[in-house]
Amino acid sequence: MHTTDYVKELQSKYIDIRNHTVQICKPLEIEDYVVQPIVDVSPPKWHLGHTTWFFETFILLPFMPGYSVFNEQYNFVFNSYYETIGARVIRTDRGNLSRPSVADVYRYREYVDRQMQAFLRSDFLTESILPLIELGLNHEQQHQELLLTDIKYILGHNPLFPAYTKDTLPVKEEAEEYSMIKIPQGIYEIGFDKAGFCFDNELGRHKVYLHDFEISNSLVTNGEYLQFIEEDAYNDFRYWHAEGWDWVKQITAKAPLYWYLIDGSWMQYGWNGLQEINTQEAVCHVNFYEASAYATWKGLRLPTEAEWEIASEKFNWGQRWEWTGSAYLPYPGFKKEAGAVGEYNGKFMINQMVLRGASVATSKGHSRNTYRNFFHASLRWQFTGIRLAR
Amino acid sequence: MHTTDYVKELQSKYIDIRNHTVQICKPLEIEDYVVQPIVDVSPPKWHLGHTTWFFETFILLPFMPGYSVFNEQYNFVFNSYYETIGARVIRTDRGNLSRPSVADVYRYREYVDRQMQAFLRSDFLTESILPLIELGLNHEQQHQELLLTDIKYILGHNPLFPAYTKDTLPVKEEAEEYSMIKIPQGIYEIGFDKAGFCFDNELGRHKVYLHDFEISNSLVTNGEYLQFIEEDAYNDFRYWHAEGWDWVKQITAKAPLYWYLIDGSWMQYGWNGLQEINTQEAVCHVNFYEASAYATWKGLRLPTEAEWEIASEKFNWGQRWEWTGSAYLPYPGFKKEAGAVGEYNGKFMINQMVLRGASVATSKGHSRNTYRNFFHASLRWQFTGIRLAR
Amino acid sequence: MHTTDYVKELQSKYIDIRNHTVQICKPLEIEDYVVQPIVDVSPPKWHLGHTTWFFETFILLPFMPGYSVFNEQYNFVFNSYYETIGARVIRTDRGNLSRPSVADVYRYREYVDRQMQAFLRSDFLTESILPLIELGLNHEQQHQELLLTDIKYILGHNPLFPAYTKDTLPVKEEAEEYSMIKIPQGIYEIGFDKAGFCFDNELGRHKVYLHDFEISNSLVTNGEYLQFIEEDAYNDFRYWHAEGWDWVKQITAKAPLYWYLIDGSWMQYGWNGLQEINTQEAVCHVNFYEASAYATWKGLRLPTEAEWEIASEKFNWGQRWEWTGSAYLPYPGFKKEAGAVGEYNGKFMINQMVLRGASVATSKGHSRNTYRNFFHASLRWQFTGIRLAR
Amino acid sequence: MHTTDYVKELQSKYIDIRNHTVQICKPLEIEDYVVQPIVDVSPPKWHLGHTTWFFETFILLPFMPGYSVFNEQYNFVFNSYYETIGARVIRTDRGNLSRPSVADVYRYREYVDRQMQAFLRSDFLTESILPLIELGLNHEQQHQELLLTDIKYILGHNPLFPAYTKDTLPVKEEAEEYSMIKIPQGIYEIGFDKAGFCFDNELGRHKVYLHDFEISNSLVTNGEYLQFIEEDAYNDFRYWHAEGWDWVKQITAKAPLYWYLIDGSWMQYGWNGLQEINTQEAVCHVNFYEASAYATWKGLRLPTEAEWEIASEKFNWGQRWEWTGSAYLPYPGFKKEAGAVGEYNGKFMINQMVLRGASVATSKGHSRNTYRNFFHASLRWQFTGIRLAR
Repeated sequence: MHTTDYVKELQSKYIDIRNHTVQICKPLEIEDYVVQPIVDVSPPKWHLGHTTWFFETFILLPFMPGYSVFNEQYNFVFNSYYETIGARVIRTDRGNLSRPSVADVYRYREYVDRQMQAFLRSDFLTESILPLIELGLNHEQQHQELLLTDIKYILGHNPLFPAYTKDTLPVKEEAEEYSMIKIPQGIYEIGFDKAGFCFDNELGRHKVYLHDFEISNSLVTNGEYLQFIEEDAYNDFRYWHAEGWDWVKQITAKAPLYWYLIDGSWMQYGWNGLQEINTQEAVCHVNFYEASAYATWKGLRLPTEAEWEIASEKFNWGQRWEWTGSAYLPYPGFKKEAGAVGEYNGKFMINQMVLRGASVATSKGHSRNTYRNFFHASLRWQFTGIRLAR
Repeated sequence: MHTTDYVKELQSKYIDIRNHTVQICKPLEIEDYVVQPIVDVSPPKWHLGHTTWFFETFILLPFMPGYSVFNEQYNFVFNSYYETIGARVIRTDRGNLSRPSVADVYRYREYVDRQMQAFLRSDFLTESILPLIELGLNHEQQHQELLLTDIKYILGHNPLFPAYTKDTLPVKEEAEEYSMIKIPQGIYEIGFDKAGFCFDNELGRHKVYLHDFEISNSLVTNGEYLQFIEEDAYNDFRYWHAEGWDWVKQITAKAPLYWYLIDGSWMQYGWNGLQEINTQEAVCHVNFYEASAYATWKGLRLPTEAEWEIASEKFNWGQRWEWTGSAYLPYPGFKKEAGAVGEYNGKFMINQMVLRGASVATSKGHSRNTYRNFFHASLRWQFTGIRLAR
Repeated sequence: MHTTDYVKELQSKYIDIRNHTVQICKPLEIEDYVVQPIVDVSPPKWHLGHTTWFFETFILLPFMPGYSVFNEQYNFVFNSYYETIGARVIRTDRGNLSRPSVADVYRYREYVDRQMQAFLRSDFLTESILPLIELGLNHEQQHQELLLTDIKYILGHNPLFPAYTKDTLPVKEEAEEYSMIKIPQGIYEIGFDKAGFCFDNELGRHKVYLHDFEISNSLVTNGEYLQFIEEDAYNDFRYWHAEGWDWVKQITAKAPLYWYLIDGSWMQYGWNGLQEINTQEAVCHVNFYEASAYATWKGLRLPTEAEWEIASEKFNWGQRWEWTGSAYLPYPGFKKEAGAVGEYNGKFMINQMVLRGASVATSKGHSRNTYRNFFHASLRWQFTGIRLAR
Repeated sequence: MHTTDYVKELQSKYIDIRNHTVQICKPLEIEDYVVQPIVDVSPPKWHLGHTTWFFETFILLPFMPGYSVFNEQYNFVFNSYYETIGARVIRTDRGNLSRPSVADVYRYREYVDRQMQAFLRSDFLTESILPLIELGLNHEQQHQELLLTDIKYILGHNPLFPAYTKDTLPVKEEAEEYSMIKIPQGIYEIGFDKAGFCFDNELGRHKVYLHDFEISNSLVTNGEYLQFIEEDAYNDFRYWHAEGWDWVKQITAKAPLYWYLIDGSWMQYGWNGLQEINTQEAVCHVNFYEASAYATWKGLRLPTEAEWEIASEKFNWGQRWEWTGSAYLPYPGFKKEAGAVGEYNGKFMINQMVLRGASVATSKGHSRNTYRNFFHASLRWQFTGIRLAR
């Protein structure tokens, strides 16, 4: 059995993390909780319900004797992609559901939270359940970041451009002076092998051989990216993957997401509404195609995820999810866990690129330099940026 | 100048009609105002804003000196299809807008209503403006019916099947005993030529030659339609138009909209939630393909709109919009009015079928036996039904 | 029993009409027989096979004892839309089939022709079969016109713009001087009631009431249509149906099909390849949206099909299929025939507009002033033109 | 300057390889050259033209003084994806072009071949051009394999299932007895560094660290794959990537491409038409999703491309392109060449998986164990198979 201390910490972490989700939604109008402007964005109330459903489905139902579900139909509404758990609302329909209401979803959260807190103090909490609770909390933190990215999308694509907060986010986002860090070739090890939580996709620490490489100490800035725009690189196929070039032409891409050319000046939608571009800030909301085209234009390349992980102690990271040149594939020795939890990561290991680091929207305590985030090469509604290598 | 009486009546009609729209929305949660599950359905808050925008754009802005618009951006948000009036949110995006909030939309209504009431008492109200105000009120009534159909769709497609009201609608919907009314051939006249309001598409009263025909005194009931289902007519192409048959196969149609086969019984979503089929009630929510296939299966046909209008004094109508066998085309002598108001009807006169009568959702005082409603043959979220002829 | 004369005439008509189909294909390369650049166009070898399949399926198989089908699988390949007759290659796949080869299809024609000629001389030919043979021949003539329109599309959309023939078509296409013919109001009769063949959709001659109207003696010319283009009517929504305006924007329509603006001059693809526009010729290859927009721009309208039929003896027709303002709907008393032949016309009576007259591509002996052709409002690869009314 | 021997060899290789392409097309009917049933398949005549265009565009035009192009418009018709070289027929339209005719394309080949043979004997042939000629010949060999795969698709999806040849292909395809080969961990080198031709994507021989692994000496057979089918693995999401599962459901996948369940037996379309499955033969025409699902079902995995290359000398390969678990990404030090030739490989390095080895359809002399073939995970019209690892 775990020490009482660990369990006490878990009890308090549970409360803090669950509360933080609610805090993120504080500035919203009820209407903002409901809409789904594109398939990748989920309505905020769906995130609130889904993270709650996770604890209900994977902890309370199997392990808390006599637990009575809040509403039988919520499994259908709030299941995301777990085939093991049965039928579900298809992803594109999430924004068509006006009910359950926001108030009902908050009642659902409170109900599950009360039960979870009782459970965390009960004898039913055995050691084998603890990793699942950690997983639930990390899952909640992932959705905290998704809440912020999705809220930004919802407000930033509204023709009224409403602000999310009146205050600037406190994070200083200005880049350091640019230099290249040299790393010598040799055998290195990557992957997680510390104590504490990690996702299954980080496990299987293993050796890799890296050749000599250099990696930038800082992220590409808005100012640098503007040059790429101004030298007309969005109209020059030579910098782009064939698929990326198709994407550029299809949406007539001209700049990162949330950039608008208004009366000759580039404006950007941010937490405070539309504002002028800050050229010192790290560029944000670019997809892999753009990141790769920028690197090609510079005569450089993106780092691989192994290079990034090895070099990561030599630079500051955490402002932007950084696109790597690595596809999201299983590490040697990757093992899918049994049951529904095994659907967490492995089944997405195709046609996605790895992003490393963390972003201004990542929850505190949710970053590791072994963390493997992943998105499809075309997506850019996350807080993504560019670090160069050669 | 109009008599004071007429203007007084208009003042009081304005208040009544505008209030009725708000009454329709009373049972809604805020979330219900926001969603757009299919392109044909608009979010209730969009209807509230759009009908208000109509008065602001076509009355207050041009005719009330010094009128200051509530919000410059609302023209972009609440314009429906008037090309004359400029750019607008595309129809499929209406459900992606969380702002303006429901509270803001109500504030917009109140603002415009105060101004309109002042205007209706002012000297700026000249005779030539009166028809536009009538048009605005009739337009509002059309949207009252759309509000009811769209609310039904939103709630009736939610997996929780929430009720709209706790009370049954008061309208008695049971059908009379079936008989055929005979009308002799000859020259008849159809179209509007009375005093009072009508839409431009009803004008141009004109002669038509009708051959002998018979038309049913009552609507096809759920019970009769069940036979059509049970004799497997949804799987027999012989009753269907080629396009209708494609539609059947594409959505695997088996019954009218809102019908669900649950544990072997046919249930129907209604204002009170899911309930058993009432076999005496007139069938509802069928499209033209279904109406036409039913008639063919019966060895009968749908009436033309001229037949319907001529016979309409001999039967009760008003429960269902009744599909006719007539395409929606201009009457001889149809004239499009100048300016934006001319976009009201004429530009839709292609690939739509005429429906005659009115429905349980039609606002009081908004029915005439010359009224020409029209929808695409595939649509069935309106309160549509079937009357047979031969 | 029919007189010997009638049967003799049928025997010789069979040979002439079947040969004419082969003549139409003479200028083709084998490759031209195979492709299907858009869904509306069928590969020429499909037309050759399908018209043959019609005689095999509806005459030889049911009525000629001991008839042995040429190839069991051809029913699957050459059935067009007859649900009664079983599964078939879906329409969009017709251009994916390299086999049966063109040579095999010609062998199929020869086989069926030999058998049909034997049948036409045999005692199995009873009176009740004669209408089916007439239908088969008229069906073949319809496909002769489709062959010409489809061949024009195939060659006219090839980047090499190959000519079909080296000779200009002999038909003089120049328009007469424009004047309006006046027709007084009253009761008229339309529909077929003569001896000889007609399609089921023309039957049921019936009375209609027409108001006073005027109809042009001549078709709109290329020169007149050029003014419509030059006054920028393709960029002015006021002349267009809402659906038509969507079509204009979607394909960025600027001119009729086959018109190309090359170095500042309008060129047109015709049977001899690209050539300059002849301003005296009747405009061709416009869809209903364009025909209707042109009429609106002129302050006029399209005639109804009843107006056209009544006036048709007072003007020359036959160069272009003339769009009418009438939807394609059943005449009073329309009856669908039993069996597969009943699928010929009735099931298409929705969302199509009627065209009257005939075109330069219509086979000799295949025109009547009661003939009801029909296409969807958006289509323009047929030889379609515009006659105005008011 | 190269030795005369090398140039002589090149002259004779040019003739042999170009002739082989023509030999592959010998069994075709003219109609088979024209169609494009899916976007991935190109019409055979397009392959014939495109490979010829390659020599005309990249050798004769720039390097042979006074060369006169065969037809100015062929650049538009036969350019595949080279943005550098200008506008081109979009890929989906290749099957809509009946012209140039097959005869014209052969004339084009003969014209270019005569000129190329003159050029190969001329003084204009300088050393720097030789690699381009090698590239052109290797490019031609790639299209020889594509011709075979595309011809199989065209004939194998025709409802008549015509055979390509009357003779069985001579290759013995029976698998060896299954065993696992063990490879110890350590630093290895992969990539091309021999004399002779290779593609740019194989260059940059570099070190990789491999952990202990085992790899099968033989390919998965039809018989083994049948068990996977019979144990209902196509209906069990647990074995599939999320994307793979979507693919299974979308096309209702039940077996490899070209397998048909007829009267209870599994048949397969092969060069001789439909035939029974040979259970001893290596399974063919599976995509990455299927290969990966099969491995997961077996409790094993696919090898990485580095593992495959290192182990490749210990097993026979060359019957099937073998799916690896590696994404197609640049090797460390990959360099895109300048100009159009640089578009050959690099721009496709996203969302594709690497296949190693070669297939029964690969041209003689076109295999290397460093060769990196690549396709999207969903594609299976190539001769693809499965080798397992752990």
